[in-house]
Amino acid sequence: MISAMAATLGPNAGLVGKPGSRFALDTPALLLERDALDRNIAVMAAHALAAGVALRPHAKTHKSLRIAERQIAAGALGICCATLGEAEVMVAGGVPGVHITSPQVTPAKIARLAALNAASHRGLSVVVDHPANLAALDLAAQQAERPIDVLVDFSAGQGRTGCADEADLTALVRAAVAASGVAFRGIQSYSGNLQHIPDRAERRAKALAQLERLRGIVRRLGEAGIKVPIVSGAGTGTFDIDPESRVLTELQVGSYVFMDVQYHQALADGRNAPPFETALFVATSVVSINATGYVTTDGGLKCFATDGPLPEVASGAPPGSRYEFFGDEHGKLVLPTGALRPALGATIECVTPHCDPTVNLHDFYHVVRGDTLVDIWPVEARGKR
Amino acid sequence: MISAMAATLGPNAGLVGKPGSRFALDTPALLLERDALDRNIAVMAAHALAAGVALRPHAKTHKSLRIAERQIAAGALGICCATLGEAEVMVAGGVPGVHITSPQVTPAKIARLAALNAASHRGLSVVVDHPANLAALDLAAQQAERPIDVLVDFSAGQGRTGCADEADLTALVRAAVAASGVAFRGIQSYSGNLQHIPDRAERRAKALAQLERLRGIVRRLGEAGIKVPIVSGAGTGTFDIDPESRVLTELQVGSYVFMDVQYHQALADGRNAPPFETALFVATSVVSINATGYVTTDGGLKCFATDGPLPEVASGAPPGSRYEFFGDEHGKLVLPTGALRPALGATIECVTPHCDPTVNLHDFYHVVRGDTLVDIWPVEARGKR
Repeated sequence: MISAMAATLGPNAGLVGKPGSRFALDTPALLLERDALDRNIAVMAAHALAAGVALRPHAKTHKSLRIAERQIAAGALGICCATLGEAEVMVAGGVPGVHITSPQVTPAKIARLAALNAASHRGLSVVVDHPANLAALDLAAQQAERPIDVLVDFSAGQGRTGCADEADLTALVRAAVAASGVAFRGIQSYSGNLQHIPDRAERRAKALAQLERLRGIVRRLGEAGIKVPIVSGAGTGTFDIDPESRVLTELQVGSYVFMDVQYHQALADGRNAPPFETALFVATSVVSINATGYVTTDGGLKCFATDGPLPEVASGAPPGSRYEFFGDEHGKLVLPTGALRPALGATIECVTPHCDPTVNLHDFYHVVRGDTLVDIWPVEARGKR
Repeated sequence: MISAMAATLGPNAGLVGKPGSRFALDTPALLLERDALDRNIAVMAAHALAAGVALRPHAKTHKSLRIAERQIAAGALGICCATLGEAEVMVAGGVPGVHITSPQVTPAKIARLAALNAASHRGLSVVVDHPANLAALDLAAQQAERPIDVLVDFSAGQGRTGCADEADLTALVRAAVAASGVAFRGIQSYSGNLQHIPDRAERRAKALAQLERLRGIVRRLGEAGIKVPIVSGAGTGTFDIDPESRVLTELQVGSYVFMDVQYHQALADGRNAPPFETALFVATSVVSINATGYVTTDGGLKCFATDGPLPEVASGAPPGSRYEFFGDEHGKLVLPTGALRPALGATIECVTPHCDPTVNLHDFYHVVRGDTLVDIWPVEARGKR
C-alpha cells in the first residue's frame, strides 16, 4: 500500500508538477519557496563578495544536499556542519570544503571522523578546543596516515565550546602547529549568543568588541610567526557587522537561506525590512472546527520547534489569527473576534519559529513555485549525529 | 565509508552484545532499559486485568513495532496511533486493532486511509468529529467497497478535537449508525488536559466528573437503542482513576512504557513512588570542559523535547548536577560548587523531559540490559504523518 516512491519522497511525491498542488499537500508538510531561497542565497553571496569575505554557510540549518549545492554554485567555498553525521552526508554527496563546527571527542566519533577524512578528497576540517582532544585527533591521523585539518575553537564569550581565553587558545594553536598528525588551518570564533540581540546597535557593539579581541590574538600569533589562514565565524544576525572587523576570512551564516520568526524579529530592527525573505513555511490543515473562537490544525510540536517564539500564520486564515501549540500533533488557530472560520480541511501556512530545529522534525522539503509543488528534496542529514 | 548496517541501524550497530557497550555508544543516543520497559508493560497489563478494562496502548509515545508487539503479547487488544502514518507502519508490521485517535480530514489523508483500510485485515478504526468528515469517510468507504470503522470523538473538556457537547455527539453517532459506508464502533473521549494535573485528588475529581458525564451519554444512547461497543480513553496520568467510572471499555495509555520527567512529577503525587519505572534515557557525552562551573555535552534541543520541563541528569555526573539547554546541539551540565568535573568524553545519561516528542527526534532505540547494548530497534514511525 505504500509505493516505493512514497517511501522515498513521502506521500506528496505524486503531486510534483501539478498546478495548485501547494494547497493539496498531505500535511503537515515543510514548504520551501524556491525563488525566495535562491534570492536569499544570491543576496548573501553578493554581500560577501562586496565585503571581501568568503562564505562557508552552515548546513546545520538546512541539512540538505540540494541547498548546499546551490550555495556552492553561488560561490561559497564550502559548507559548515554542526555534527559529524551531517558532514558524512555532505562529503558523500560531493560537497567541497566541509568544516565541522563542534568538537568531536569520544573514541566512537574520532573513529568515524578518521574514516570520513580518509574518504574525503574535497576538503574536511574539524574544530578542537582542548589539548586532550588535539592529542586524540593527532594520534588518529597518524594511525590513518592521513592528516586531519583542524581549526582551533575560541569561545567568543558564549562559553559553549572553545578555548576560554587567549592564553589557552594560543597554547592550543602552538600545539596544533607542532603536531605531526593534524594540520593547523586556523581559528573558529562563533558568537551564537549575540545573533538574536534585538537591538542592532547593541548587537553591533558586542560583536565588534569580540572580533577586535580576536583580531588582537590573530595579530599576536602572526608576530610570533604563526600564520592563521582561516578565521571562521559570524551568523545571520551579524552577517553585515562581522566583515567590518576585517578579521574573519569567512562567514558561517546559516539561517539566511530560510529566515524564521526569531531572525525576523532580530533583523527587522533598525531597517525598513530584513534583507532576506521568508522562504520556509509549514503547511498545516484544519482538522477540527467544533470550538468557538478557534479551529484545530494538524501542526503541533512534532512539526514546529518549541524552543523559540511561536509559529506565525502566513496564509489561509483571517488576518489577526494567531497560532498556539495544542499538543504533540495539533495546533490551535485562534481567530479574531467575528472572523469567518476556515473550513474543515483548509490549508494554513505558518512561518517557522526557529528554522534549524523545525527542519530537523521533517523528512522532506516540499519545494514550491507559486501554487505548484515543483520538487521534493529529502532532508538527508536530519537527525544525523 | 558508511556500511549498510550502519545505514540501517546507525553508528552503534557494531556494539550490540559487547559488555560495557552502554558507556561506549556514539552519542547522543536514545537508551531504553529493556527490563524496566517489560516491567512497566506487565504492571499496566496486570492493572487493566484487575480493573476489568481492556488496553489499547498509544503508539504515539514509542512509534515502535517492537514495543507494540510486546504490548500485544502482554494482552493488549490493539494499538492507538495519533497519525495515519503511524498507523501505516503498525498495519504493515502486522499489529492488530489499530485505532487512529485524530480525525483524518483532507482528501489526501482520506485517500491514504481508504488504501490502508483495504490492506488491513486485523482491525483498523479512526475517529470522526464532524458530519462533513463523516460524509467524506462514508463516501470513500462506499467507493472502496470496504467499510471504515469509526469511533465518534468527544471533546472531553479539552476542546482539541471531538464533538463539543452531547447534542452534537449524539447527532454524529446517529449519522454514523445510519451511514452505509462507515461502521459505528463506539466513542473516544480522551482528557489530555487532565493527565498532568499535579494534585492527584484534583486530577481524580476532574477525570471522574468528565467520565460521569460520558457515562450518562452512553446510557442515554443505549436507552435509544444504540449500542456503544467501544468507549476508549484515559492516559498514564489517570490510568488508575478512569476504570473507577466503569464506562471506558479500554485504556489508551501511552507514556507508562517509558515514564519521563513530566509524568514523574504528576504520578509521584500522593504515592511513595510512581508505579512505573524510568525506562528511557538519552546518553550524551561531555565534549567541552573549558568553562568554570559547568561542562558542555553533545545533547541539545535536537535530542530532547523542549516543550516540557528540563531533562534530568540520571548518571555520569556528580549528584546535584543539573542540565540546561545550550543550543541545538549542546547541553550545559551545571555542576554543584566544588564538584569534580566529569572528564572529556564521559557519558552522561539524562531522563527525557517529555517522552513522546523526545522519541520523535531519534531514529533508534539503543536497548540496554545493565551495561550492555543488547539490541537496536528502529523508531519506525518517527516523523510519519
